[in-house]
Formats: sequence, structure tokens, C-alpha cells
Amino acid sequence: MSVIAERGYRGASLSAVAERVGMTQQGLLHYFPTREALLIAVLEARDEWDTGGTKDTARAWPLEMWTFLVDYNAMRRGVVQTFSALLGESVTDNQPAREYFAERYGMVRERAAATLRHEFGERLPGGLTPEEAAPLVVAVLDGMQFQWLLDPDNADMSAAFRSLVALLGRERG
Amino acid sequence: MSVIAERGYRGASLSAVAERVGMTQQGLLHYFPTREALLIAVLEARDEWDTGGTKDTARAWPLEMWTFLVDYNAMRRGVVQTFSALLGESVTDNQPAREYFAERYGMVRERAAATLRHEFGERLPGGLTPEEAAPLVVAVLDGMQFQWLLDPDNADMSAAFRSLVALLGRERG
Repeated sequence: MSVIAERGYRGASLSAVAERVGMTQQGLLHYFPTREALLIAVLEARDEWDTGGTKDTARAWPLEMWTFLVDYNAMRRGVVQTFSALLGESVTDNQPAREYFAERYGMVRERAAATLRHEFGERLPGGLTPEEAAPLVVAVLDGMQFQWLLDPDNADMSAAFRSLVALLGRERG
Repeated sequence: MSVIAERGYRGASLSAVAERVGMTQQGLLHYFPTREALLIAVLEARDEWDTGGTKDTARAWPLEMWTFLVDYNAMRRGVVQTFSALLGESVTDNQPAREYFAERYGMVRERAAATLRHEFGERLPGGLTPEEAAPLVVAVLDGMQFQWLLDPDNADMSAAFRSLVALLGRERG
């Protein structure tokens, strides 16, 4: 994770990681067959860290936790870059990126729906059901990461996410 | 474009395209120095087609045009896959993908803001300004493409986009 944070996606080579952990490249390949598999394992570790290790997607996070994670991501560009680059690979590859992201999206949508249901009930103030709103939440998170990576001065992930939450939760006047 | 539509991102090799247009691979490389450059040129041609060739982003498209393009994209998976794969590359590469996407996002956000201003005025019914809402529109388009490519049965791009438009345009009760 720290090699990615410091050097970004391209800089996180097998040799750089091997050096950091005091192994040979050959030794590292014993645990992770390819560089892509290693990077996916880092993303999985991040998910575990961010979610406190729970895979129980029905347990609702507080909405503030989502906002916090967006702000936190804005401080770890290398990790967001690695996530976005591998997401791009996942739509053409079969593994391991595709498996990771396909499973992750199902879980993240469920988790988002649970948060929205806990916060707003079966119908959000903006009119959508939790299941209709969840894919939008996830799409804005991912989509804004690309805009921010490409043009940080003109794309504010935190502001955009807060705008979406305000829209979803806006009471009828 | 038709090679991409038929064979997807990985199948659209230089040799497949060369064969389709009746050129040698060497001849094709005279016009496009790399496979990536060729694919970016296809995406540029798609943008020109979709926008009627205008680069005037201040001219507002009707909102229905955006909805139509989302529905249309759901019929051209290979092109959406190529777009998304190159978008992933763009956050680590310097060219040509990065240049294409960075410029494109500036334009698409401007175009989205112009559409929203034309439709709703300086303040959208949902409470946002056109400039605050435009990045959300673009993020939902891109983010939903990834969810749809990875899991088409559980991610409906058209429904999600319509939900967002309804949220943005929802009048105070």
C-alpha cells in the first residue's frame, strides 16, 4: 500500500514491492502469481481496512462514513489511481480484476442500499427507493474519481458526493 | 467502429482492422502509430458523430438527447467497453488516452451544464446550480457503464440515468 501511495500505479512494480518487504521478486511471485494479482490483493486489503473487515453488507454504515471515505480517498491519489486503472482492465480481463470488481460492486450496492434504508426508510425524500439510489451513489463515487484523477483542479469528489447526498435526502419543501 | 462493435476491446487488433479496410498492418501504422492511438481516434469519431460534429459546448442539447445516447450505448457494448478500458489507461498514461479524456471531460461537463441551464435556469429544482450538477451527470454516465459492463443483469444504465434526471429536476412539492 505504501509503495502504491508513493509511486502510483506504474511505479508499484514487483521489484519495488519485493525490495520494500525484503524479499526477492521470485519469493514475492510465490505468493502472488502476477503483478495484477498483487495489486488486487492490495485493494482487497484496503476494502477490509475501510469496512472494518465485515462482509455483512446488510449492516448499515452511517452515511457520514461514506462521506469520510470520499474525503480520505482524496488524500491517497496513488491508491485511487490503482483502483481506477484496474477497474478499466476489469472490463476486458477475466481475472483476477474482473472477479474482484464484479463481486465488489454487488456488495457495495447492497451496502449503499442498507445505509440509505437505515437513514431514510423505504422511500428516500428525493423519491427513489434505496435500491434505485444505490447504483447512483456507487457510480458517482467511481465516476468522480476518474474526473478528479484527470483534472483535480476542476473536479471536486467531496463536493460532488455531498451534492448527491443532498439531492437524495432533500425533503419535499 | 464495426470491428470494435463485433469483437470488443481485445479483439480490435491492428491486424483485424487492417484486414477490414484492405490495408497492410504497416500501412495502417502509417496513419496511427499505435493500437491505442487508433482506438482513441475511433472514440473521437464517435464523439463527432454523437454531437453532430459541433465543438460548441455552450449550445445546449435537449435533455432527451442525453437519455437517448445512454439507451444507444446500451446497444453498443464493444464501444462502451473500449471507452471504459481506455479511460482506465488514461489515469496512468500520458498520451494519447490522457489528453483525449482530460479534454473531453472539460467539454462534456460544459455541455451538460449548458443543457441543464437551458432546461431549468440558474438553479435546478433539486437545488443545485448547473455547474454543480454537471459533474454528477457525467460521473453517473461513466460509473454506470462500469457497473453495466461487469454485471449487465444487475445494473441498468438507462434506469439509473433517468433516476438522476428525475432527482435533479424534481420540483419542490
